[in-house]
Amino acid sequence: MINVGLIGLGTVGQGVARLLTERREFLARRLGTDLVLKKVAEINPERRAQANLKPEQIASRDRDILDDPEIDIIVELIGGTDVARELVLEAIARGRHVVTANKALLAHHGNDILAAAARHEVDVAFEAAVCGGVPLILALRQGLAANHIQEIFGILNGTCNYILTQMSQQGMSYSQALAEAQQQGYAEADPTLDVEGIDTAHKLAILVSLAYCTPLNLEPIAVSGISKLDPLDLQFAGEFGYAVKLLAITRNDGSTIEARVHPTLIPRDHMLANVSGAFNAVYLTGDAVGPILLYGQGAGMMPTASAVVSDILDLGRNLTRGVKCRVPPLGCNAALESPRQIKPLDEVVTNYYIRFAAWDRPGVLSQISGILGKHQISIAAVIQKGREVKGAVPIVMITHEALEANMRQALLEIDQLPIVSPPTVFYRIEDPHLHAAQI
Amino acid sequence: MINVGLIGLGTVGQGVARLLTERREFLARRLGTDLVLKKVAEINPERRAQANLKPEQIASRDRDILDDPEIDIIVELIGGTDVARELVLEAIARGRHVVTANKALLAHHGNDILAAAARHEVDVAFEAAVCGGVPLILALRQGLAANHIQEIFGILNGTCNYILTQMSQQGMSYSQALAEAQQQGYAEADPTLDVEGIDTAHKLAILVSLAYCTPLNLEPIAVSGISKLDPLDLQFAGEFGYAVKLLAITRNDGSTIEARVHPTLIPRDHMLANVSGAFNAVYLTGDAVGPILLYGQGAGMMPTASAVVSDILDLGRNLTRGVKCRVPPLGCNAALESPRQIKPLDEVVTNYYIRFAAWDRPGVLSQISGILGKHQISIAAVIQKGREVKGAVPIVMITHEALEANMRQALLEIDQLPIVSPPTVFYRIEDPHLHAAQI
Repeated sequence: MINVGLIGLGTVGQGVARLLTERREFLARRLGTDLVLKKVAEINPERRAQANLKPEQIASRDRDILDDPEIDIIVELIGGTDVARELVLEAIARGRHVVTANKALLAHHGNDILAAAARHEVDVAFEAAVCGGVPLILALRQGLAANHIQEIFGILNGTCNYILTQMSQQGMSYSQALAEAQQQGYAEADPTLDVEGIDTAHKLAILVSLAYCTPLNLEPIAVSGISKLDPLDLQFAGEFGYAVKLLAITRNDGSTIEARVHPTLIPRDHMLANVSGAFNAVYLTGDAVGPILLYGQGAGMMPTASAVVSDILDLGRNLTRGVKCRVPPLGCNAALESPRQIKPLDEVVTNYYIRFAAWDRPGVLSQISGILGKHQISIAAVIQKGREVKGAVPIVMITHEALEANMRQALLEIDQLPIVSPPTVFYRIEDPHLHAAQI
Repeated sequence: MINVGLIGLGTVGQGVARLLTERREFLARRLGTDLVLKKVAEINPERRAQANLKPEQIASRDRDILDDPEIDIIVELIGGTDVARELVLEAIARGRHVVTANKALLAHHGNDILAAAARHEVDVAFEAAVCGGVPLILALRQGLAANHIQEIFGILNGTCNYILTQMSQQGMSYSQALAEAQQQGYAEADPTLDVEGIDTAHKLAILVSLAYCTPLNLEPIAVSGISKLDPLDLQFAGEFGYAVKLLAITRNDGSTIEARVHPTLIPRDHMLANVSGAFNAVYLTGDAVGPILLYGQGAGMMPTASAVVSDILDLGRNLTRGVKCRVPPLGCNAALESPRQIKPLDEVVTNYYIRFAAWDRPGVLSQISGILGKHQISIAAVIQKGREVKGAVPIVMITHEALEANMRQALLEIDQLPIVSPPTVFYRIEDPHLHAAQI
């Protein structure tokens, strides 16, 4: 018999409690032994009352779970980083295995937590922290473990993908789409963590560590979100054959690693371009396996609970066999001791979409392209439309590969031109076909 | 140190030998101990000579591997069912853990093999047997283990998907597309196992067992392949908004299980409709997690080797920790003892695409629809084209849900009509939108 203690009866906690309670027999058949939800701690008395649990299962204090010597696995589902950190570290110190869905906790304090887990020889599992119910962590830690991961593109935040889908399919503005997402329960009242790309960056930090056997490191990940996106740019992107997605991108060029989160133009026939609504997907390339796509629900009560319970089962299998730390949490034994360099954004080379608002006078294009050329940026395609944006006309360009630092410098200079109405808008493109020819 | 013995240096065997040799250090970092390709047995002397192996690694007889007491894991990659069966059973009897990519072996002799493995307490791993490098078995056995699997739709054979892609995108006939596939190395000289759906059925048998905790059983799986497909039907399907894919389908309706392989019409906006070329993909639904898609290369040297080596690593982790049989091969402990009923094809209810070749006379449609109606088959849509097929005109129908037995009986009667030129062609449709309304 394996005893589970659950801390936090929010949406995901309720889902986990339901799965463990309602399919106890089914899970016992999988595991070969009974899996018991022994105790649940929740400070909110309403949630405690609503949960379909026996009185002896309910505790009001986390301590009741930490202090129970019969509990084998502690599931942390309270969210946040401060209390959760204390809780998880104490659980580890007491020799309990831990399951968490908390990406913010891992992105900020993951190294401390995993180092503590190694010292105390306990497991910390976090399948639910990235892509909800999609078994992505399992794939990176085990299924694809024979590969050098070359790159990962991820749609890791359902809120952003829902908003972008509404903007591109319904022509909504960002604020309309956000309001719609809030109404549908896909966005929180304060959507900052989601729409500014922060949640996506938390998840990317975890993926970078798993893919490249390196400590968790949020700090060097360049992040921009979707709140400034103009439907006009979705429309122009479409005219060039691109969809716009908030992507988490990481790539290994052999020496350094790229890690960035930003709205990205991808070809409309790319599999990620067709991931719509609140779904998540990860498109990754391993040097042996080639491209792999994993797709599914990245959030929500039952999809996330599915991942949490799969972790509980996995730890349960260890407990019944008397083993622990069978697979290192980041897939590699020495991951915490071998930090890899993350390339600063300025050194990234990519293709760009640029939209200038320019006064429609002779020589505009030549002045702009002159400055771009001076900074080694060559143009792959241009659209100039009659439409006026605040009196100026939009000129939209797709560039060949250019260095981010050069692009930023060129745009600084271009935005000084009297014929241009700043600020110029630019987005990065990921399109393997563009890498080939130059105009 | 973990010693691996490899039997068979065909395409996949060469890939496995390469991975184990070329990235020995990388794999040791993952595993925490050295993974040694101790011996390789291959009867073909040319292949032995070509392999980049040390002389002491090379054996000409399987026995040299079976007899080596230092070998921990035996990898069977010779293919076929007879010799492979003997080999695997003997390896198990000698207490060796086994990795195989052999879906035919598992579909035909899997129960004997897994029962022997249970008796001798060894592991049998087969990630590479379905969807090549895609970590699908891992997902079903572990990542999604908290779910009741409701249905699985799989594109499991790259040869068929390549041929269908060529037929639908290039308008090729079946035989042109097959010739093209053979030229590109996607189809064998004798393509029967692939194009007749047999390989897909082998893989589906494995998925059914994993999804529903039931013994392997190939026999009740209804199978039809793609060799009779007329490009005309791909074209008409397209006019109704459908793509045609060879799908492996399994579904649990609560009491019995469907399991069938056949060309299937799916909505063009379904994620599987956009899986083209030699790629594989599985779209499955779990009751907690919802829909999941896994996509990648289902065959080829390195993708398949990636899966084989991930199995070797997993068994290696067990060996270094002194555990075995941590996860039952079919994900459930009692899978071999609890056979589930597979529904006969005649009892399946689905939507149909039917193409009649009819003489263009008044009353044709009324006679046909009269017979369909008599058998409780109602029509959702009809196209009648002026084009002549051998003197007759094609009439194409999409039906509402109907019982397979009724459909077959109705078509038997319709094919007797003097106004119809038999045989009438029909394909099954999987389209959730069609389930709703009746005309």
